[in-house]
Amino acid sequence: MNLLVVGSVALDTVETPFGSVKDALGGSSVYISVAASYFTQPVRLVGVVGGDFPREHIEFLASRNIDLDGLQIVNDGKTFRWGGRYHYDLNVRDTLFTELNVFEYFKPTLPESYKNSTYICLGNIDPILQLDVLKQVTKPRLVVGDTMNYWIDTKPNELVSTLRHMDVLIVNDSEARLLTKEPNLIKAAKKIIKMGPGIVIIKKGEHGATLVTENTIFTAPAYPLENIFDPTGAGDAFAGGFIGWLARTEDLSPDNLKRAVIYGSTLASFCVEKFSIENMRDLNYLQIHDRFLAFMELSRFDER
Amino acid sequence: MNLLVVGSVALDTVETPFGSVKDALGGSSVYISVAASYFTQPVRLVGVVGGDFPREHIEFLASRNIDLDGLQIVNDGKTFRWGGRYHYDLNVRDTLFTELNVFEYFKPTLPESYKNSTYICLGNIDPILQLDVLKQVTKPRLVVGDTMNYWIDTKPNELVSTLRHMDVLIVNDSEARLLTKEPNLIKAAKKIIKMGPGIVIIKKGEHGATLVTENTIFTAPAYPLENIFDPTGAGDAFAGGFIGWLARTEDLSPDNLKRAVIYGSTLASFCVEKFSIENMRDLNYLQIHDRFLAFMELSRFDER
Repeated sequence: MNLLVVGSVALDTVETPFGSVKDALGGSSVYISVAASYFTQPVRLVGVVGGDFPREHIEFLASRNIDLDGLQIVNDGKTFRWGGRYHYDLNVRDTLFTELNVFEYFKPTLPESYKNSTYICLGNIDPILQLDVLKQVTKPRLVVGDTMNYWIDTKPNELVSTLRHMDVLIVNDSEARLLTKEPNLIKAAKKIIKMGPGIVIIKKGEHGATLVTENTIFTAPAYPLENIFDPTGAGDAFAGGFIGWLARTEDLSPDNLKRAVIYGSTLASFCVEKFSIENMRDLNYLQIHDRFLAFMELSRFDER
Repeated sequence: MNLLVVGSVALDTVETPFGSVKDALGGSSVYISVAASYFTQPVRLVGVVGGDFPREHIEFLASRNIDLDGLQIVNDGKTFRWGGRYHYDLNVRDTLFTELNVFEYFKPTLPESYKNSTYICLGNIDPILQLDVLKQVTKPRLVVGDTMNYWIDTKPNELVSTLRHMDVLIVNDSEARLLTKEPNLIKAAKKIIKMGPGIVIIKKGEHGATLVTENTIFTAPAYPLENIFDPTGAGDAFAGGFIGWLARTEDLSPDNLKRAVIYGSTLASFCVEKFSIENMRDLNYLQIHDRFLAFMELSRFDER
């Protein structure tokens, strides 16, 4: 229990072939927290926004029982904004603009009440800040982290230092290859395990995700959606569902890690069906459970 | 029973980062037949070679109980040759040369003894020739076909005509997208189903394969090999394992189609562990069954 999430809070402007949205609620800590809130509550969020951050977003996050004591509000600053456009092939996207605003000087500071958090999810931010967060937590039980090409390229040494303190690294396939200079994904995952995290999850977009530990390899398919509306946040929703399930069950056995990967995939699949966090506003237990079972149906086979 | 395979017979020259091989046994009908021979025998092969085709290859194929009555030998011609080089990232390859030789004028003619074949596997050849083969078969029960970008680009109408007579189309993801002009793979598969084949299998290389029918979607992972030696022929070995299992069991139920996909994936995984058909020379039942079970372990999860 006691899940802590740190990452960006953003206002996203997104165009896809199916529509567009301006200044929609986004950011890694938002997607992670909202997804995780379906498994454990409250989720403790650490992030920063400007004075322009709409009150309705605060109210929505609070309605999901997300603890906002760690959300810094810089009244005379502007919220981080990101703009992107997806191509007809949704695997391809262009970043149209990035306005860091208050996020540029973000220094995550944990409220006293957060320091006993045991499940920690480090969204994709500067690895130095990720490590700062960990130093403020007294006794973490499970540290899950994300990163991206930008940090691998610009702060490789800092990233390696932070990796030593992670139990689970969640990266996509190109990031895993970049980090290890190894094209074979299984070999890449095993190299990452040697860098610190005993568990590596490689996200492969429309091809699902693969969990690799010293002794286990588990592959989860992506849910075969015919209509993917907006892929933004899918990876963070995955991380949120994954750590949310683990924080709820407090069971880190291989079998339960596999379930956590499926719950992560489940939340990611809901996430991409609408813009922003729209489709994660009000899921219910049955919807989540039904999709978990659909994942089982999708990949299960028997001997004759 | 009575499995008929038509396709190329080739001598392949392949370079990978791990070694190279010259004039090794290859070609779609060879990979398909050899893989299928682990499930049903004899396999009836239709193809063409030149007078230079090594006697040892004939002997090997015969040793797998592959019926060679349909193998045309053009004594004064040369065998089809293909040369390719794989990059360090094995997903990327360059074709170095293609010498069609006797394959350029290949006209598949079925020996009388083949015409009652019920399971038909049409390797990747001109769709006009694929249709010619089907016209010579009196009562096919299951027609499985492969194709490639080249035919989609150069003979789209002929391909569409042939597709109407296929029950299963096996293509890779980029071919499915090219054929349907649809980036979403599930939508692409459903478009192909409307073109004739009630069953579509999309091969995704290191990401496994997806089976799509009107009512079923099934995803199989790729076997997580750390050392892929030579990807040549993997797709054909998949097709051979798939149709071989179906011909053996004569059961086209959804559950058995899933098993067939796993047996296809199993043979493909063996295929890529060595050059050419080397690793499929002498598999035994236990090896195949163990890998089938490993696929189960890889993708299985339970409710808590």
